[in-house]
Amino acid sequence: MNKSEVKREILHYTNGKAEYKEDRIVTEYPVTIKINGDEFVTMVCTPEYIEDMAVGYLASEGVIRKYDEIDDLWVQEDEGFVHIKTEKPNPYYAKFQNKRYITSCCGASRQGFVFVNDKLTAKKMNDVRVALSPEDCFRLMREMQESAETFQQTGGVHNAALCDRNGIVLMRMDIGRHNALDKIYGYCLKNEISIRDKVLVFSGRISSEILLKVAKIGCEMVLSKSAPTELALQLAGELGITTVGFIRNDSLNVYTHPERILVNN
Amino acid sequence: MNKSEVKREILHYTNGKAEYKEDRIVTEYPVTIKINGDEFVTMVCTPEYIEDMAVGYLASEGVIRKYDEIDDLWVQEDEGFVHIKTEKPNPYYAKFQNKRYITSCCGASRQGFVFVNDKLTAKKMNDVRVALSPEDCFRLMREMQESAETFQQTGGVHNAALCDRNGIVLMRMDIGRHNALDKIYGYCLKNEISIRDKVLVFSGRISSEILLKVAKIGCEMVLSKSAPTELALQLAGELGITTVGFIRNDSLNVYTHPERILVNN
Repeated sequence: MNKSEVKREILHYTNGKAEYKEDRIVTEYPVTIKINGDEFVTMVCTPEYIEDMAVGYLASEGVIRKYDEIDDLWVQEDEGFVHIKTEKPNPYYAKFQNKRYITSCCGASRQGFVFVNDKLTAKKMNDVRVALSPEDCFRLMREMQESAETFQQTGGVHNAALCDRNGIVLMRMDIGRHNALDKIYGYCLKNEISIRDKVLVFSGRISSEILLKVAKIGCEMVLSKSAPTELALQLAGELGITTVGFIRNDSLNVYTHPERILVNN
Repeated sequence: MNKSEVKREILHYTNGKAEYKEDRIVTEYPVTIKINGDEFVTMVCTPEYIEDMAVGYLASEGVIRKYDEIDDLWVQEDEGFVHIKTEKPNPYYAKFQNKRYITSCCGASRQGFVFVNDKLTAKKMNDVRVALSPEDCFRLMREMQESAETFQQTGGVHNAALCDRNGIVLMRMDIGRHNALDKIYGYCLKNEISIRDKVLVFSGRISSEILLKVAKIGCEMVLSKSAPTELALQLAGELGITTVGFIRNDSLNVYTHPERILVNN
C-alpha cells in the first residue's frame, strides 16, 4: 500500500447478493508547475516521481531543452506545487503555446501536426538502431503487465516501460496516460540515460498525443496492448517511428515502419 | 464505414505467421473553437457531432450558461474550425481559466476541486429522482456495449450513453473520453432534453474530470465498466452523485450514494 492507492468501503453486488467490503482505489493528485513564480500548468497525476514528471513535461513541451537549463527545482508535496527556476525558458514556447499549426495549403496540417510546438520538439528517426522479433514484443508486453501491480489491484492506471531487448529498464505508472511517459522522460534527462537504443511499451491506446510524446522523448519504436489512431499513424509514418499494437497472446499488428520488426515467414 | 474510421494496410502477425491485411483504424480530427474571432481551444476528437461537442464544452467550462447565449455558430468542417459569436461570454470564465482552486486551509482543496471554474459550474444533486436495480445497471451497460459498433471494430473509442430506466436515449462515441460527454451535453442543451431523470453510462474510467463533467451536465448517476479514482469519489460524495463501477457480467461496485441503487438482499 502506497500513496498511489487508498482503501475505501464499497457496496459490492454479485450473483444477486450485496455486501459491504473494502476495496483499493487509485488516487489522483493535482500538481501545479510554477515557472519563475508564475502558475504555468496544473495536471492531475498519480503522486509519485513528481519531479521527474515536471522535468519530462517541460522538456516535451519545449520549455527546456536540457536538464541543466533548470537552475532550481523544489517540490511542495503536501500542497501540490513544483517550483522551477530557469534563466532561459525557450522563447519559442510562450509564443506558440497551444497555438494551432496551420500550413499554407489548408486548415488541417497535411503532416498531421496539430500544434506549432509539437512540430518544433518532435524528433525524426532516420536510422534503425533497434530491431525486435515478434517474440521479443510478446515477452516485453508480458513482462510489463506482470510487473503492473497497481493496475491489477485497481484497474485504474496506465503503465509505461522503457525497455531494451533484454527487458524493462524503467517502468512508471500514472492515472494520466502521458504523465507515465513524462516520468520516464524526466528520469532519463536527469540521469543522462540514452534512449535511442530502447523502445517504449505502453498499456494504453496510441493517440497522436502519445505518439508525439514518444517522438519528443526520442524513441524509435512504441509497443502497445491497444489500438492506434490514424493521426498517430500518419505522424509515426513521417517521423520514422515503428508502431506495434494489439499485442495480445501470440498476435500483434505492425502499423508503421515494419523494418524494425524481424519476421521470418 | 464513416469519417470516424479509415482503412489501412497493416502487417498482422499471429501464431508465427505474418501477412499484410486491411484493418480499420479510428480517426482523430483537430478542432479549434474560436470565440468572437479569437482562438479559444484546440481539441482532438472523432469527427462527428462537432457542433454539439463545442456547445457542450463551452457550457461545461462555464463560458455560456444556456444555448440561447450563442448568437451564431458555424462549422468549417474541412479546416476544423468552430466559430462562435456570443454577446456575453461569462466574465468569471476568463478570470479563472485554468486557475487552481486553493482554499484557505491548505494547498489542495479539501472539497476535491482542482479548478475555480469547476467549483462554479458543477451542480449539486440534493434529490433522488432516479433509482435503478443492479439488473437495470447490467442491462443498460450491455445495451451500450452491443450498440458500440466502432469500438468493436477498432478498439479505439470511448462510448457514452444517456439512458433512462427503459434504455438508451442518446449515445455518442469519441476517441476523447470527455468529448463523448460534451457531445451528449450539447445535444441536450440545444434540444432542451431534460437530464435530471436520466443516468450516464460510460465505457471508460471515472476520473475526477469525468465526474465533474457528469456534475456539470447535471446527472445524478454514472455507471461505468471501469474503475473510479479516489478524487472522483470524493467529489461524487460531496456533489450527491451515485457512482457505480466495474459493471461486468452480473457483478458491480457501488462507490458513493447507494440510496439510488435498489438492492433486495
